[in-house]
Amino acid sequence: MKPGSMKPIRIGIIGLSPGAWAANAHLPYLQRPDSKFEIVAVCNSSVESAVKSAKDLNLPGGVRTYGNVQDIADDKDIDLVVCATRVDRHYNCIFPSLQAGKNVLVEWPLGGSLEEARELLNVAKENNVELAVVGLQGRFEAIVETLKEVLKEGRIGKVLSTTIISQGLIAGQTELHSQSYLIDRESGGSLLSIPALHLLDTVQAVLGEFSSFQSLLSNQRRAVKIVKADGSVVKENAVKTTPDHVMIQGTLNSGAVLSATIRGGAPFKGSPGLEWSIYGEKGEIKIAGPSAFIEIVGTSSVQLHDFATDEIVELKLKNGTFAEMYPINRNLARVYEAIAAGDKSLLCDFEGAVKRHHFIEEVYNQNSQV
Amino acid sequence: MKPGSMKPIRIGIIGLSPGAWAANAHLPYLQRPDSKFEIVAVCNSSVESAVKSAKDLNLPGGVRTYGNVQDIADDKDIDLVVCATRVDRHYNCIFPSLQAGKNVLVEWPLGGSLEEARELLNVAKENNVELAVVGLQGRFEAIVETLKEVLKEGRIGKVLSTTIISQGLIAGQTELHSQSYLIDRESGGSLLSIPALHLLDTVQAVLGEFSSFQSLLSNQRRAVKIVKADGSVVKENAVKTTPDHVMIQGTLNSGAVLSATIRGGAPFKGSPGLEWSIYGEKGEIKIAGPSAFIEIVGTSSVQLHDFATDEIVELKLKNGTFAEMYPINRNLARVYEAIAAGDKSLLCDFEGAVKRHHFIEEVYNQNSQV
Repeated sequence: MKPGSMKPIRIGIIGLSPGAWAANAHLPYLQRPDSKFEIVAVCNSSVESAVKSAKDLNLPGGVRTYGNVQDIADDKDIDLVVCATRVDRHYNCIFPSLQAGKNVLVEWPLGGSLEEARELLNVAKENNVELAVVGLQGRFEAIVETLKEVLKEGRIGKVLSTTIISQGLIAGQTELHSQSYLIDRESGGSLLSIPALHLLDTVQAVLGEFSSFQSLLSNQRRAVKIVKADGSVVKENAVKTTPDHVMIQGTLNSGAVLSATIRGGAPFKGSPGLEWSIYGEKGEIKIAGPSAFIEIVGTSSVQLHDFATDEIVELKLKNGTFAEMYPINRNLARVYEAIAAGDKSLLCDFEGAVKRHHFIEEVYNQNSQV
Repeated sequence: MKPGSMKPIRIGIIGLSPGAWAANAHLPYLQRPDSKFEIVAVCNSSVESAVKSAKDLNLPGGVRTYGNVQDIADDKDIDLVVCATRVDRHYNCIFPSLQAGKNVLVEWPLGGSLEEARELLNVAKENNVELAVVGLQGRFEAIVETLKEVLKEGRIGKVLSTTIISQGLIAGQTELHSQSYLIDRESGGSLLSIPALHLLDTVQAVLGEFSSFQSLLSNQRRAVKIVKADGSVVKENAVKTTPDHVMIQGTLNSGAVLSATIRGGAPFKGSPGLEWSIYGEKGEIKIAGPSAFIEIVGTSSVQLHDFATDEIVELKLKNGTFAEMYPINRNLARVYEAIAAGDKSLLCDFEGAVKRHHFIEEVYNQNSQV
């Protein structure tokens, strides 16, 4: 990138439609007046779709509209390719751009499988891609910085353990038609690879990596209903091959132990969809949030129980940049700002992404009968 | 026993002192006018101690006072020997009575190890002991009958999973001097064998047995402070060799999956020390309670979230017998009544106890480095 440069970084986005992820999550930062980026191209499944999106989303008149990902790769005026398609299309969508040596930001998961992720890492390396990163943006959420500071201050002493119970919304009784690929293991998208992995990545950003772990995956609902957003049924008893329960227990490099259970579906009504405890020698921190998608919805409360005083303190989230934005937007804003500043301290590069894919692969291997 | 007989069943209690477990837990039922039992003998570590207990606890004048467990075994007027000593004394305390063919009710855990438990089972069998049971009385607590009924009615459909997060009070920052044997693995008493096992036994009474499981044990606080009830310190940095974290994940015979984390120490201030969810096809049940010791303190709330109506219903505990007593007392009252009635449907006999000891042994084997 061009840190310090006054010229905006020129983006080509693959997969941009009103109401879909990139429009909801990325655009609010990218369209800010103080954004360090400029959208110069949109690539959808067809030129018509790209033209429609550019218009409906009020992109500048000169934006280029493509229907083929090779065109993005070939466009010399693009500094960074952003890929926001569903996971099973990542590989094909970004391969040409990586081959062309372009910088890429791709949504997590990097690929539909460990193998795809490895190949994408290789092609990035072979073509000397300067910046190839994935959107594991939970690391940028305010809770991470807040907790890291509280732990560094020693307010709960050495961390002994952490427990997480959370609900992933997807993989419940029904699946939305627009994301019904999530019931197909082959797609690479699932409760495990998306909400559970994002959440664990965020937890690990605070508490460190696993030294070892074991897991229990289960697919309890093997047939689900596919519905539209209005509740109308598209298909009864669609075959589901992805897990709806992800249970992990392990030891972190720090020596602390972890137990995490992420299940599909909605939380118990009126209860937090994320309950995360960090138990230390001298105190305990209790984090609550709306769902497993901590990177999208943030947290709703953070409390610290100090054993010495037996008192509870409400912790305020550290403001950080873009604190006035919703978590779904501020975390991507921070990803973009880190890219613009060339700050790789929190960004997850393809090496890091392959490591996360290894974790998923290992979980599947540990549960080969599921 | 003598079901239907008008004559009370005559008990000899091993280990009865004011303020200790048997006095707090067993006596309230045994001293009721409608109790079907009569305490005819007390055996403590000395005759003097037995005499003092009998007097301080207002036992009838004719009660026999022993300082040697062989005397209990030899007493022809005792129908049932009750052993309420600490676990590391169970083996020696009840062996002579089993050899004498006496009926025995012994607190859980049966022995200090799987080997001891097996030997006690064998000696009971060899001597044709009619009734040899352990105090796994959580199965008698109202929540079990309540949940079994709700599940049987199909109100949440097929059970898909269950999650438990709970705190065991013991194995925290400090250990009480009176129960400091709990920090010594050799004693057989620990967070694993006592609160975690009682809780899991209660859960399994509702949801069935494991078909497979894996576990993570951890001893995070390897040196703890031994204190008296008034908080005064008896010993700093006493070596602890028992776990303070018990994490279990497994599959039940029904196919449902389970994740349970029981840690030592107190709950987060103001939060339940037991959070137990039962997630089904059509609804979810959420149980809260004060701590892992569900058999002693019961539960504080049971709610059902019906997915079809999206409403929450508070479930009332089924009253059952002795509902007016505290859980610590009513569950033992029910154990005694089951013994008197010759009803073995819920009682845990020595075969069942050995099975539970097997579980503990397997957990230790899975975590041999702890």
